[in-house]
Amino acid sequence: MIILVVNAGSSSLKFQLYQMKDETVLAKGKVERIGMESAILHFEPAGKQEIREVREILEHTTAFRKVMDILVHPVHGILQSVDQIEAVGHRVVHGGESFSGSVLVDEEVKREIKRLFDLAPLHNPAHILGIQAVEANMPDIPQAVVFDTAFHQTMPPTSYLYPIPMVLYKKHKIRRYGFHGMSHAYVSERAAAFLGRPLKELKLVTCHIGNGASCAAILGGRSMDTSMGMTPLEGLMMGTRSGDIDPAIVPVTMSKEDLTLAEVSSMLNRHSGLMAISGIGSDMREIEQAIKTGDRNASLAFEMYEYRLRKYIGAYAAAMNGLDAVVFTAGVGENSAMLRAAVCRNLSFLGIELDEQANERKESGEREITAPESKVKALVIPTNEELVIARDTYRLILHRNDVE
Amino acid sequence: MIILVVNAGSSSLKFQLYQMKDETVLAKGKVERIGMESAILHFEPAGKQEIREVREILEHTTAFRKVMDILVHPVHGILQSVDQIEAVGHRVVHGGESFSGSVLVDEEVKREIKRLFDLAPLHNPAHILGIQAVEANMPDIPQAVVFDTAFHQTMPPTSYLYPIPMVLYKKHKIRRYGFHGMSHAYVSERAAAFLGRPLKELKLVTCHIGNGASCAAILGGRSMDTSMGMTPLEGLMMGTRSGDIDPAIVPVTMSKEDLTLAEVSSMLNRHSGLMAISGIGSDMREIEQAIKTGDRNASLAFEMYEYRLRKYIGAYAAAMNGLDAVVFTAGVGENSAMLRAAVCRNLSFLGIELDEQANERKESGEREITAPESKVKALVIPTNEELVIARDTYRLILHRNDVE
Repeated sequence: MIILVVNAGSSSLKFQLYQMKDETVLAKGKVERIGMESAILHFEPAGKQEIREVREILEHTTAFRKVMDILVHPVHGILQSVDQIEAVGHRVVHGGESFSGSVLVDEEVKREIKRLFDLAPLHNPAHILGIQAVEANMPDIPQAVVFDTAFHQTMPPTSYLYPIPMVLYKKHKIRRYGFHGMSHAYVSERAAAFLGRPLKELKLVTCHIGNGASCAAILGGRSMDTSMGMTPLEGLMMGTRSGDIDPAIVPVTMSKEDLTLAEVSSMLNRHSGLMAISGIGSDMREIEQAIKTGDRNASLAFEMYEYRLRKYIGAYAAAMNGLDAVVFTAGVGENSAMLRAAVCRNLSFLGIELDEQANERKESGEREITAPESKVKALVIPTNEELVIARDTYRLILHRNDVE
Repeated sequence: MIILVVNAGSSSLKFQLYQMKDETVLAKGKVERIGMESAILHFEPAGKQEIREVREILEHTTAFRKVMDILVHPVHGILQSVDQIEAVGHRVVHGGESFSGSVLVDEEVKREIKRLFDLAPLHNPAHILGIQAVEANMPDIPQAVVFDTAFHQTMPPTSYLYPIPMVLYKKHKIRRYGFHGMSHAYVSERAAAFLGRPLKELKLVTCHIGNGASCAAILGGRSMDTSMGMTPLEGLMMGTRSGDIDPAIVPVTMSKEDLTLAEVSSMLNRHSGLMAISGIGSDMREIEQAIKTGDRNASLAFEMYEYRLRKYIGAYAAAMNGLDAVVFTAGVGENSAMLRAAVCRNLSFLGIELDEQANERKESGEREITAPESKVKALVIPTNEELVIARDTYRLILHRNDVE
């Protein structure tokens, strides 16, 4: 079964074509700058040369048609016909409290995703555009949605409620949702397999640290807490997001700098984090380069980033009253040996014994970076959110076919 | 040397009279509802009957004159003459970055406390009123100020900076300050004495949990991090304050409930915390009573309060890469055996072994509540912020006299 995985943003459309159940990636690519005359289509068919085209693409339906065209292109394409695609799976950021797992798209599901626009104003509208673009081009194909929030719906109220008037939860659903759920779910399963132990028995802290970053306390395979909250602003220090701050900083900054609330929100989301402290950029690779040249602000940014992550690992060990392994994933987690080393060295009291050489080794697969005798393990597990979407979509289609 | 300790609030003036260096409390009391016709003067002279008077007291200078009058009252008083008082020590909440210790009051010190009005709009103006009330009544007496923030000035930038644009720190001093410093300092010293170990060698987490609540990571006797931030809103869940929330909740609540920024700030400070979740009150004693009658919201409030405190203890153990003891102090910390038990039981992975009976025992002094073999100790240390103020004032006066 061939499944197309789609991740639609407000001006982008990323896709991957999977052969299931083999889990082979047949092609992947993205359309960027949708809405511009100079939109970019990037396409990587497996075993063929990659392609980059610049052309006018004004909205998502056209973007999706271009994707279909390139998939069946006589030279660059990978399919005879788009009819070979049997289902489409979409990433959807916010599933609110309505979705604790992936579902097939119907009218009610679309209505519910729209009801959640308030909670994810940048993301959910784009996902609806993505779903509609598929409908317009492939009217009869079944579509599934896989939510960033769903995996965290197992959190108990103690974790998901904020200590603010309950009416805000009851009326407006203001609560912790958490994000990166596909990634936390995927790496915790892989970690259990890697350790050769049942997931049900494990206490894991999974650290998904890319440009956005969150960590989660995974108790027996279920998310019991996570650092992102009602929105992806809360929690860890990130590339451009502040993470946790004193909420009183919002009004004080508005008054001191004569900014609107929207401007302060934008500042906290786009001009904070590594970017703000380093003055260099939001990318950990740039920060590490700058540290090597002796840049003190870069060092400070790195130390704050590491310190804030480490405190969350300690907090989640306390949340679970124990810890079997820390899992690093996503861009920074998979690639920054320097960050992993700092975190692990500074957590030796928990029984983490870093294997410095294993940590430094330039490998790309799943691996352990602690010594064999380390009481608590540290693992690097490359994440694969697209695969989670492909698997969930495949499973939902099989199940539907069984039922019918 | 007789020293008067003053804690002036916007409509209150609390005081304690100390015989130093014996550290004997000769009397204590407070004036409440200053500004009203029905202000209340409460006075407790040592070894005599306590007194409560209701009368018109319209501002702090009059309030302070009433305190002087009662101190030398022929029947209820404790002094022959107010000239016996050799110095006054004030609690001041915010010392900003200017004060890393207590100082004698001079014009520059007063100016600096006024410069910090912005950062502590509810507290510092009241402290200035208190200082002026003393000046008006006892023109020549030396006064000292002891700051809630000073002890935390040892925090490294990694702890005190927020991941937001650096200009906010450089121009407006937006950073973590921390509060309850006198209490964290006092109980960490007492904890070292109790354990019979040098403070310099210890890693402590001190939990000052009263109506306001903060915890601190005390490494070798120095504060290296603390949960309250730029203001006392950040950090732990408290009686009526939310503590940590997703900063994005501020704009969302404003828009959903059509509230002003000031109203949301007030909500987070006065109508959140235990109060908001329990729907019963902000006092842990009320919450515990309600739990006994099976109130589920009270249980939820308790569990959130405990959970959020426990996560901070874990985070600070990670911050210090180790933990020797957890210290409980202030109203809830000293009196809620139920809270201490829940925290300690859920931190057994750190090597905390609660002695259930020792924890339940109704004692009021310094005590250990962990078993003798417990790797990490848990202690109850009653705090005494007034004594810290009396000691610092005494030390500053002695030093001044030496120099002169």
